[in-house]
Amino acid sequence: MLAELITIGDEILIGQIVDTNSAWMAQELNLIGIKVKQITSVSDDREHILSALKEASQRATLVLITGGLGPTKDDITKATLCDYFGGGMVFSEEQYEQVERLFRSFGREVSPINRKQAEIPERCELVVNYNGTAPGMWFEKEGVYYMSMPGVPYEMKSMMSQQVLPKIRATFQTPVILHRTFLTQGIGESVLSELISDWEDALPEHLKLAYLPSPGLVRLRISASGKEEQQLNADIETQAESLYALIGHYIDGEGDETLESLVLQKLLQKDQTLALAESCTGGNIAHLITSIPGASAVFAGGVIPYSSELKARVLGVNPETLKNEGEVSEATAREMAEGVRNRLKTDYAVSVTGVAGPGPDKDGNPVGMVWIAVAGPDSTSAKMFQFSSDRGRNITMASLAALNFLRRSISE
Amino acid sequence: MLAELITIGDEILIGQIVDTNSAWMAQELNLIGIKVKQITSVSDDREHILSALKEASQRATLVLITGGLGPTKDDITKATLCDYFGGGMVFSEEQYEQVERLFRSFGREVSPINRKQAEIPERCELVVNYNGTAPGMWFEKEGVYYMSMPGVPYEMKSMMSQQVLPKIRATFQTPVILHRTFLTQGIGESVLSELISDWEDALPEHLKLAYLPSPGLVRLRISASGKEEQQLNADIETQAESLYALIGHYIDGEGDETLESLVLQKLLQKDQTLALAESCTGGNIAHLITSIPGASAVFAGGVIPYSSELKARVLGVNPETLKNEGEVSEATAREMAEGVRNRLKTDYAVSVTGVAGPGPDKDGNPVGMVWIAVAGPDSTSAKMFQFSSDRGRNITMASLAALNFLRRSISE
Repeated sequence: MLAELITIGDEILIGQIVDTNSAWMAQELNLIGIKVKQITSVSDDREHILSALKEASQRATLVLITGGLGPTKDDITKATLCDYFGGGMVFSEEQYEQVERLFRSFGREVSPINRKQAEIPERCELVVNYNGTAPGMWFEKEGVYYMSMPGVPYEMKSMMSQQVLPKIRATFQTPVILHRTFLTQGIGESVLSELISDWEDALPEHLKLAYLPSPGLVRLRISASGKEEQQLNADIETQAESLYALIGHYIDGEGDETLESLVLQKLLQKDQTLALAESCTGGNIAHLITSIPGASAVFAGGVIPYSSELKARVLGVNPETLKNEGEVSEATAREMAEGVRNRLKTDYAVSVTGVAGPGPDKDGNPVGMVWIAVAGPDSTSAKMFQFSSDRGRNITMASLAALNFLRRSISE
Repeated sequence: MLAELITIGDEILIGQIVDTNSAWMAQELNLIGIKVKQITSVSDDREHILSALKEASQRATLVLITGGLGPTKDDITKATLCDYFGGGMVFSEEQYEQVERLFRSFGREVSPINRKQAEIPERCELVVNYNGTAPGMWFEKEGVYYMSMPGVPYEMKSMMSQQVLPKIRATFQTPVILHRTFLTQGIGESVLSELISDWEDALPEHLKLAYLPSPGLVRLRISASGKEEQQLNADIETQAESLYALIGHYIDGEGDETLESLVLQKLLQKDQTLALAESCTGGNIAHLITSIPGASAVFAGGVIPYSSELKARVLGVNPETLKNEGEVSEATAREMAEGVRNRLKTDYAVSVTGVAGPGPDKDGNPVGMVWIAVAGPDSTSAKMFQFSSDRGRNITMASLAALNFLRRSISE
């Protein structure tokens, strides 16, 4: 079954915002076995919206539309939807009550323009927006289904998860789809694919394998599609066993979590704590970890010793080490990790010191050279990495390498 | 003049990657006066690519294509381009030499598959890729121009900036376009637009105003389009004077910089330094600042005192203050900022302490409540903010509010 995504809004076409909604929706649809054929971004323009709807309906049986429903421009979009599906506009008491409730919670009055947002085409089925003023609208025309949603990501995501995806599953009687995801490490995507190509080729028709490379990890996902949940589970189990037999030593866990979330979970399970000393990553690792709700149960804190002096004064790195070995060195990385672990009294600590760029450091170390150390309850290990010439990329790569290094140290 | 953007690749349609290229290209095209009519993402499929090219050519005179040129799938894309434009494939010595040079610099051998990437449709004009193995290809057919580029963002951006944009300007003889951007603060977009609506309506035909809201700032951009650079400059100057007369006290500078980069520049100009004490923002402000090359000239370092104990022990916040006023309080924010400023011996320091979420803190403070303090050479100021219920949003909003608060403190 095929779907298409249409985003409406000049702000995307002038590059003011990046369309992140479509990737998220595509992932969600994939998980229930619906393939996205095309993603189209069009302007807030009647003719353009009409032609996009028509073209999409010729290729797909489900069309998800986001955007074009802001208070200043939903006139065009909704009038266009009336043109396309027929019928006039009606006022939705149900959506309006929701808008009133929302405004009351902010202590604000509903303005006439927000009241107008509660108008919907009479041919649609209302999908109430519990997080904003723009209603969701579900249509059917000549066997094709359409769902129009607000463009604000968190409003759209909440509506999709709670209302639209269940509706899609019910309408299209999508098959039972089960997934199981394996995390691999220490092996590149191409070598991995060579190792398992015979196994992959021999997979039964109703099982599919997907490679999901994400920063720092390659995931393999087996998806099984059918009618009997129990049978599908058994089928996946059989294949999982074969996969473990083939590449078991590269599989480091299962699940869809990010690297930072995996690290946090491992520490939580062991009731252990973490401190950070981030020089060239400048707080990015702390930011990744503290973006996860509940991080404070594990993360004690961090120090960003951007200047050499702070490495000595705040973290207790020996000034002789800094002088003789340099700021970017194994010895400094080790002392940073041990220093922050001792001072913050945690079980683990990670340190990163390197040359983010754009130029080499004062000791002549090249851009992209990074030392990472992990100090644990029993010992400290350190490793050198050589990343790229790009500052942003180096910060990202060093952060992921540090999280991966920590993850392995905790597992050992 | 209208352009369309086509991205080719299943990885976008399954949601594995977000298409950030299109927004960047749209911005660049807008700056030279070219409007993007539609953005389309299609699969690695011959028929689908052909119909997308055909449809785009009916709406636009310039079609920019990215992706579909990776080593495992450029066969389809290039064969499809040959179908569409006619002619066969030829081997490009020029691109191949570049690939060899690139591989030599990595100390690697060129593989047969990379050699094959140097094949191009004979009807195209080669645009050499200096940063990767996939060549750029420029075509013309029935008055419409097409440019096919690799999907890797930094390869595409480099090719666009150095080769493609100059080519577009030369081919279409685009007008001279000048821009001047004003940063406003302390005023929302809607109030701003009311204040200047008469002025905006009276702008001469060849001058356009754009609102560019970005996190923490609203920018106004005047663009002038014509033939005579000197005259356009004078026209913009006249309107800028009127704009300053109308809303001068809300204009806080000019330029396209981000908030963090503005702060860094201001501190650099004054030869002053910065320290951070980030509790609920968890390193995000440090990350924003250290993402900018040269940050180390200004940024001494930061402390992320995620636990209460660290606020006292590392930053020197009075334990009595923490006990009596609470961790999220004006007094704690002030002592954190002053503490980190004293310990790191900087001119300025910013502290953030608040409730990121998802739940209220142990003192019952609501999610989204944040105290921010700025300690400067002469005094310390603090402010309370109430953001949203979403953790990620609170971290972003608090970081931007802190940068804005700091920026104003430096200006005073």
